[in-house]
Parts: sequence; C-alpha cells; structure tokens
Amino acid sequence: MREVAVIGIGQTEISEQWDKSLRELAGDAVLKAMADAGLDFFDGLYVGNMMSASANNQQHLGAYIADWVGQRGKEAYHLESACSSGAAAFRSALIAVASGDIDVAVAVGVEKMTDSPSTEITASLATAADADWEFSQGVSFVALNALIMQRYMYEYGWKRSDFANFSINAHVNAMHNPYARFHMLLSEKQFEDAGVICDPITLLDASPIGDGAAAALLVPVDKLMLSHENPMIRIAGSGASSDTITAHARKDPIWLTAAENSSRDAYKQAGIDPKDIDLFEYHDAFTIMAALSLEASGFSERGQGPRLALDNEISKTGKIPVATLGGLKARGHPVGATGLYQIVEVVTQLRGMAGEAQIEDARWGMAQNIGGSGSNIITHILTNAR
Amino acid sequence: MREVAVIGIGQTEISEQWDKSLRELAGDAVLKAMADAGLDFFDGLYVGNMMSASANNQQHLGAYIADWVGQRGKEAYHLESACSSGAAAFRSALIAVASGDIDVAVAVGVEKMTDSPSTEITASLATAADADWEFSQGVSFVALNALIMQRYMYEYGWKRSDFANFSINAHVNAMHNPYARFHMLLSEKQFEDAGVICDPITLLDASPIGDGAAAALLVPVDKLMLSHENPMIRIAGSGASSDTITAHARKDPIWLTAAENSSRDAYKQAGIDPKDIDLFEYHDAFTIMAALSLEASGFSERGQGPRLALDNEISKTGKIPVATLGGLKARGHPVGATGLYQIVEVVTQLRGMAGEAQIEDARWGMAQNIGGSGSNIITHILTNAR
Repeated sequence: MREVAVIGIGQTEISEQWDKSLRELAGDAVLKAMADAGLDFFDGLYVGNMMSASANNQQHLGAYIADWVGQRGKEAYHLESACSSGAAAFRSALIAVASGDIDVAVAVGVEKMTDSPSTEITASLATAADADWEFSQGVSFVALNALIMQRYMYEYGWKRSDFANFSINAHVNAMHNPYARFHMLLSEKQFEDAGVICDPITLLDASPIGDGAAAALLVPVDKLMLSHENPMIRIAGSGASSDTITAHARKDPIWLTAAENSSRDAYKQAGIDPKDIDLFEYHDAFTIMAALSLEASGFSERGQGPRLALDNEISKTGKIPVATLGGLKARGHPVGATGLYQIVEVVTQLRGMAGEAQIEDARWGMAQNIGGSGSNIITHILTNAR
Repeated sequence: MREVAVIGIGQTEISEQWDKSLRELAGDAVLKAMADAGLDFFDGLYVGNMMSASANNQQHLGAYIADWVGQRGKEAYHLESACSSGAAAFRSALIAVASGDIDVAVAVGVEKMTDSPSTEITASLATAADADWEFSQGVSFVALNALIMQRYMYEYGWKRSDFANFSINAHVNAMHNPYARFHMLLSEKQFEDAGVICDPITLLDASPIGDGAAAALLVPVDKLMLSHENPMIRIAGSGASSDTITAHARKDPIWLTAAENSSRDAYKQAGIDPKDIDLFEYHDAFTIMAALSLEASGFSERGQGPRLALDNEISKTGKIPVATLGGLKARGHPVGATGLYQIVEVVTQLRGMAGEAQIEDARWGMAQNIGGSGSNIITHILTNAR
C-alpha cells in the first residue's frame, strides 16, 4: 500500500445553521479543503453522515455533494457507522488512495440536526443501538451511556464530580476554536449543579448536537509534487474494529475492546507507543466515554481514566492533551461529521496552526471516533515526522 | 493493486419475509457465502443498504451484522448510494482486498421493505432523488422514471409495447431461479393491459420491491491456496461514476453518462469490448432503464435499446443475454441488496451452475447497478478466464 498524506482541510462552524442546507454545509467544507490543498478536483468522494435520511429527507449523499461542488462524474459514496461515520469515510478515502486506485480523495463528514424536533433526533440517534434489544425497550442513547457510567462508578468507586474536568478542560480549549459550538467557561459548581438527563449523566456530561461539516483531502506521499505549500501530514496508522452492537452483550461493558483493538493496530503501523502521542482527539460524547477511551487506548490503567482528569494531565500542557480544540463536549458533536472534525483538528495541530490552542512541538496526533455504545471504533495516528 | 476473486456467494429468496428480521436475512446470505468459500471468518464486512434507518429503525449495520454472524471485532461499515448501495459495498470490499490491507472481505446487500406501509417506502425511495428540487416538489421515484421514459419515447418514436419484451424476457428467465420474487410468465397482452402507475410507466414496466439479502466473499488471487473447491471467478474490471443528483440538470436526461463512464472504465481494465460480454445483469428497475443501460454500455446505438428487446437479442441465446436469472423485474429489487444479487448471479453463470438458465460457454459477465435516476452507476466485469 502507498503512504498517504492529508494536504487539505476545511470545516464550517458548528451551530444552528438554519440558513444553510445540508449540501451547502458539506460543500463549504469540501471546497475549503480543496482550496487549502491548491487543487480544483478530486477523484473520489467519501461522505460520512448518520441521519440525513430522517433529518433531511435526503440520502445518496455521494452524488448529491459531488454534483454540488462541481465534481459530477466522480466516484462518490456515503458511509455510515453511526457516530463513527466520519472516520469510516476518512478510512475509506485512505484505503482508496493507498491502494493505488485513485490519487486524490476527499472525505467529508456532514450532519444537519437542528432543523428537526429533538424527539426525532433522539429516535435517530437510537438507530445506532440495537432496534430489537435496546431501542424498542425504550433505551435511548443517553440511557445506554448512563447504564455504563453507573456501572463504572460502582466498580471503581468514582463520584460524579471526578468527571468534571473532562468537560471543564474541553470548554477551556474551545475558547480558542472559532468553529466551536460553545465559547464559554464551565466552573466545577456549574458542573455539579447541572440538571440530570439520565442518572448519573447530566447536561454537562453530554456533548451538544449541531449542524456542521468538516473535510480532508488525501493524496499519496509519492505524488506530493502537487502545487501546495502546506506541511505534509502523513497518516501513519489506521485501525478499525467493531464490537457487539448491544452494550449488554459485552463480556465487560465498561471496557472499550474496539478502542483497544483499533488503537493497538494504529500504534503498530505507526511504530510508536501511547507515550509518543502528543495530543489525542478522543470521542467525549459523554464524560464516561472520555474515561473509557483513555483507558482502552493505553493512557491510563483500567478504571483510572478519571485520575487523568483530576490531576489535569489532559490539559494543553499535561501528560496527554485531549480535546485540544474543544472535543465533542465544547466544539460540538454533529454526529456523522465528528470524525472529520477530529482529523481536521489533528492536522491543524501538527501544522502548528492552532494558535492559542497550539500543543507545543506536536509531532504525533491521534483521533478516535466511536460509533454506538462502543460498537465501532476507528483510530487514526497522523504525524508531521518524515 | 492485487487481483481479486470471488470464491463464495450466498443469497436468500426475495419475498415478503415477515418471519425474518433484517439481521437474519443478512446473516443468512453472509454465512452461506462463507460456507461456500469454505471459510469461517472474514477480515472486513461491507454492507449495502438504503433504507434500514426508516424501514427498520436500525442503522450501524456493519457492527450489527458482523456481531450476528459471530465476527464481532472485525472492521465493518455500511455503504449507501441509493439503489446502487449493493455495488458500492462490493466495490469497497474489492478495493480493501486489492489494496493489501485485508485478505478476506465480505460484501453483503440487504433490504427489508415489506414490513412498512407502502407510502413510507415510496417516501424512502424518494430520498435517492433531490430533496429540495425533486422530492419536495412531489416527484416520486416512479414519476422521475416516467418523465425520462416519456421524453425518450418522444425523441425516438417508440411506443409502450416496444418495451414489453424487457419484462417478458425477465419473467421467462426467473422461472429457473429458485430465489426469484416471481415465478410466472407474462404475455404481451398482460403487459399491454397493465394498470398505469405514472404515465407511461405501468405496473409491468416496474420492478417489485421485496425483502432479501445477497453476499459475496472476496480474496486476493495470489492467496487462492485457501481450501475451497469453487472455480476462481476473477474481478476483471470495476468502474464507478456519479452524475447530477437531479434528472433535469443533465445535459441529456435520456442518456446514462455514469453508465457510459463506469462501463468504459471496466472494459478498459478487463481489456475487452462490449462484444466480448456473454451476459449482462443490468439494472432494469423500469423498462426505460433497461433500454438506457444497453445503450450507454455499448450494446446498442443511441435511442435503439428497445430494438434489442423487439428482436429478442436479450434472451438466453441472443446477442446480449440480460437479466439471466430474472433481473430486477422478476428476480426482484430489494433496493440496497440488488447490486449483490447481480454479482451472485454473474458468479453463478460463470461457474456454470445456473441450471436451466445457464448461458452456454459464459466467460465474461457484467453487472451494472444504478443509484437514483442515473446519479450513481457502478459496473463490474467478472470472468472465469485465467
């Protein structure tokens, strides 16, 4: 397989974009990524999206977006693996370029969620879980995470407040991200006082939905004679793993086996260890997922994820900086787009262009996108090292 | 890229399978394909499906099906490009194996449509078209095809009865396919008398929906030491092309540019011409699409597709046998599964195992899957030639 690099990135802000259609959001991100790369074409388009069928009455997003950005005729598909749809699209673009089949691929994640009633969005999110054994029993997606968090707190003796810094740190970091959903600091008191959604998960454990799109343009490293001036950001490792679709069927429901598998594969390909990672864009859809991701990806002992938050080792200058531009909690979580936001943010850091949020001397960045309650987890490691 | 072969196939019958869930249908096809290949595992699963979000309250089909067939942990995604979702899944599996990233891929197409009210299915099918410029104007999917057919008949002077043999031939061929939706012959009189759905399209121009799943197992040719006894069926050519999402935006709405592009690429890779093709599993969702596919794929002059039907050159012993096991019209069209049914049928023919429906000395078979009104078309050429 050929080595592949990202040479273009683009994103829209995450907000309630009622004045932009689904295609306009996706188109903005794709055209920015193409302009950033200095290219006016691509060979293949890979679209990550979870809920356009129900939220926007629109599927067939490959042709829909390729047409909109003036690239009709190009190969174009839509990939879906719930909240990990963005990383699935990125990985498909990577494999297509690595294989030699095409030279220029664009992966875009897009989601437009705020035009629909929230009950409909809650029902759409639940299609990531098992329709027969979870959804139809009345278990919403927040409820699944609450069950996991409850069990985790019971097993390891954590209290709710031990998770506070996952959210507080994310909001600190989002202050310097112009594309983020929230630009406001959180206090420990606010976290403590937040209203319960599904015990023990409160509003401030949960990430916000939103409308947004992010895109990355990929080319083979050996064809980097292309006319662009950006530093080369290589995709050094890529791993993907599924797990049971239901949370209750897992041997250990408070361990993300698919994160362990996919990060192990990515580390191995990249030839590095967790200690080499300079920043980690993890999937903090809920604070419990932040803790579990850190553990399964090798940054913490089993059951000790919250310790990293308590010791503030997850901050910009900590042992393992996470959510460096706000994460899902504060940048926002437009579900099918999130995996591409993570990639765009890792590339921004590795280019040294993250401004006030810049991680010093960042050389290895990792992005991990989770689908369902841990049923599909995709991990990528990128680097500016040659 | 590595050469890739199909060494396992599986399918369910297409019918109203109210006693089988979505996962059971998909699982049956996947497990049959694995058994056929003599393998009890795969490395990656690629699922083609269009409407499980609305029709079955279930997305995340990669993890959902991998788990069900005992392959939890494996990489698994869902691909969607409307009615061409099946071929998109097959092509993704092909690229993954060709790249060297994995050795054993399964592509499965599945759709479960008959549990839902028909108005809901009509609305779901319309998400393949443009939500803003087609669907919200009240144009259903049948209506789009009717507009195209009306224009085509006007331009080239064909009458409705000239399309009859596309449907009659499909029903003849389905008689020998135990998995087909229909086992009944059609007469010209029945075709003439059929009720109009949307002028000029009648019930007997249109393919039936249904519940079903089909799967193919792919391995690299250079690793064919695997313990299976089936003849090697090589994937000799693969092409994919998009077009405008709306039918009205095309320069020529009665020409399938994406079929022309993708078949040209597939012929070039295979090193053959249309005259070398021994059978063509085309996308006869409507008789007009049958005519347009034959033209754009090089089997007929522009505007002369119906001539092949009138002269019965599309029959088993004709110049270009099509829909050899019933096609969409009579085998049935469970939308996201159709592209895999086409592949399974081409492999069956090339193995010489099509029984009464066998095309004599078949060496080159082609499958072409159409998404939307021609917005995404994927063409594969397979062969038993070494």
